[in-house]
Amino acid sequence: MQQNNSEVGSLEACLELDARDSLAHFRCHFELPEDTIYLDGNSLGALPKATSQRLSEVVQLEWGRDLISSWNKHGWWDAQKRLGDKVGRIIGAELGTVLVADSTSVNLFKVVAAALDLHPGKIIVSEQANFPTDLYMLEGLIRHMGRGHQLRLVNSPEDILAAIDSDVAVAVLTHVSYRTGRMLDMAAITAHAHARGALVVWDLAHSAGAVQLDLSGADVDFAVGCGYKFLNGGPGAPGFLYVAERLQDKVQQPLSGWFGHARPFAFEPSFEAAPGIQRFQCGTPPILSLTALEVGLDLILQAPQEAVRDKSVALGCLFKRLMEQECFEWGFRLASPPDASQRGSQICFAHPEGYAIMQVALIEKGVVGDFRSPDILRFGFAPLYVCYVDVWEAVQKLKLVMQERLWDQPRHRQRAAVT
Amino acid sequence: MQQNNSEVGSLEACLELDARDSLAHFRCHFELPEDTIYLDGNSLGALPKATSQRLSEVVQLEWGRDLISSWNKHGWWDAQKRLGDKVGRIIGAELGTVLVADSTSVNLFKVVAAALDLHPGKIIVSEQANFPTDLYMLEGLIRHMGRGHQLRLVNSPEDILAAIDSDVAVAVLTHVSYRTGRMLDMAAITAHAHARGALVVWDLAHSAGAVQLDLSGADVDFAVGCGYKFLNGGPGAPGFLYVAERLQDKVQQPLSGWFGHARPFAFEPSFEAAPGIQRFQCGTPPILSLTALEVGLDLILQAPQEAVRDKSVALGCLFKRLMEQECFEWGFRLASPPDASQRGSQICFAHPEGYAIMQVALIEKGVVGDFRSPDILRFGFAPLYVCYVDVWEAVQKLKLVMQERLWDQPRHRQRAAVT
Repeated sequence: MQQNNSEVGSLEACLELDARDSLAHFRCHFELPEDTIYLDGNSLGALPKATSQRLSEVVQLEWGRDLISSWNKHGWWDAQKRLGDKVGRIIGAELGTVLVADSTSVNLFKVVAAALDLHPGKIIVSEQANFPTDLYMLEGLIRHMGRGHQLRLVNSPEDILAAIDSDVAVAVLTHVSYRTGRMLDMAAITAHAHARGALVVWDLAHSAGAVQLDLSGADVDFAVGCGYKFLNGGPGAPGFLYVAERLQDKVQQPLSGWFGHARPFAFEPSFEAAPGIQRFQCGTPPILSLTALEVGLDLILQAPQEAVRDKSVALGCLFKRLMEQECFEWGFRLASPPDASQRGSQICFAHPEGYAIMQVALIEKGVVGDFRSPDILRFGFAPLYVCYVDVWEAVQKLKLVMQERLWDQPRHRQRAAVT
Repeated sequence: MQQNNSEVGSLEACLELDARDSLAHFRCHFELPEDTIYLDGNSLGALPKATSQRLSEVVQLEWGRDLISSWNKHGWWDAQKRLGDKVGRIIGAELGTVLVADSTSVNLFKVVAAALDLHPGKIIVSEQANFPTDLYMLEGLIRHMGRGHQLRLVNSPEDILAAIDSDVAVAVLTHVSYRTGRMLDMAAITAHAHARGALVVWDLAHSAGAVQLDLSGADVDFAVGCGYKFLNGGPGAPGFLYVAERLQDKVQQPLSGWFGHARPFAFEPSFEAAPGIQRFQCGTPPILSLTALEVGLDLILQAPQEAVRDKSVALGCLFKRLMEQECFEWGFRLASPPDASQRGSQICFAHPEGYAIMQVALIEKGVVGDFRSPDILRFGFAPLYVCYVDVWEAVQKLKLVMQERLWDQPRHRQRAAVT
């Protein structure tokens, strides 16, 4: 990645990397606040410059002028499928297998319920350290179904394969951990599960838009993901769900609202599921939030996913090297896998004073990362708008925070942030 | 309602009614297309003029500039409860009993599941002519719970009371029928159900913002409703749900996502429901769609609900009288209750050629109503932006359509529209 004479990790070397970056021009398509280095695109992606204008068109011309006729005239009716197909191109899924709908949590409920309908087993495998809402949704689902399903939670990613035995109905796994950035081997785990007759649901919240994915190639059964992180769809953007084509017409999902009906405008009194992925739609979708998400999707679709992943890895490796070089003397410990091929698009460090370092001092200095209890500092790299010099400056500022003990001050407690 | 010398139902009389209308000034707060008389605000409410500016602020200043910190700084975190309390003021519910969240369909699933948890009965009463998505959601819920619940569907509103006997767990009823505008007696049915130990879930989709409601006074258990009709929240705006304070801490709902957790940012591995209404939250909410809805709520909160209802009744009565006078010779039949006190904010007429009259001819003439299979022409009155002269003109144009048989032309089939 380095073909010049500047010292590796120097400001000059970073400037040269930016100058040679094939994705560098994407940065000008985002509104980024001055004086901020934003390394939290894995919580909330930055604002594409085109979003405001597009939203304004939809509000004024579609809603305001064409009113109810816009459901047909402006493609509102098909928006969930149209956006789904765009997400599909990003995650390596075939046309007609992805839908943008509801929230990630609601989508998880739908696809896990569908999976449990297909499989007589009673065991659901997941990780103790999975993103909590996934576990919470599983708890609610199990209690509500009342059919004696049980959660089998593993304590370490190394235990996942062994936990998926022939008693298992479905494994519900997050591809890239929100806490450590550790990335699981989607293809290997899916194949292992299939060999034992189990299904897998993948949560791609921290993967889509930052990591190369090939859902078709990995023969994935079900997946869900998030629109407001690396897809830059805006706060609380709708989530997505994927169902393999081979399963779609075999499954039903419990949230069988009218948008999932075969003939929604026939207003028939009983439910008949639409063919294909559309049976996973439920109620009327929030068009304004879908509009913003579509702008984010259209932008990321212009970037080759391979280049996105390469840059993400390079940014993460640079950050790690600079942290080791500049900051490890103050007691930071790498909390992500050391091997970049096992990381998503973030890198995490543990520090006993992590909360104050991040929430009191570093954000004050204009470097926005994230803190995750009990001691994790989390830095995310959105390759479309984070550059190499950002990484260099972020580590320099963290060094300054440590040198001057800027974190050792009265604390602002309980800053809420959304992963 | 008439205190002048103009002939009742004449253009002059309508002009005078508009001149005396205490809500007339609200019309200038909406963007309404010229040459359109919009009588479909019960499908999609019109665009408030303030929406674009407010959305632009949220996009540029909150998302774009303040990024992740906006969850606290700009009240995103509490938006569902804040908006819920605003809806509560519109529907006569106490603070802390209403939440804006998800879609109406998803909310129905949550509250019916919660109700069924409270009651050992197996019978769910509803109407065969209920809005289909409510029935579809009940079907999905019953199948998914697998506990032998059964739907008892009545064919006529007159049969509802008799159907709610002591075997019934919950009645799921729509307050104002989407098809006929018929309004049920919320207080009487709720009291009847309570006397037999049953619970009631009210769907207020066609009521909130147009009909005076007193959920507290009627001792309602649960309710849901829609943000994109008379609340003018924009296409697919999030829905709302209401849970009586006395029930909140006794119930759980199955969609137990992290926004419903007692301590969402503690990232605990198991679920503990938040106290109060917030346990009915699920995933991360769509902030941009919530933003537009809040503008609609703030606008309607400026109008006394009693005046809104009075004008709605007056518009409906005027429409009925003019239809009888000008158009009944062509075979229209009133499909709504003749008594205004039994109607919501719409009036419906049946005609064998209803589809073509509405979808081919009348909309072409600039009068936007709605058609509902098999033969219903539906006209909705949003009292904040529909005026008396609109009603007069709409009937004159319908008369012209009938006189000149403008509907009797090659048909544009299958216009999708959202109730």
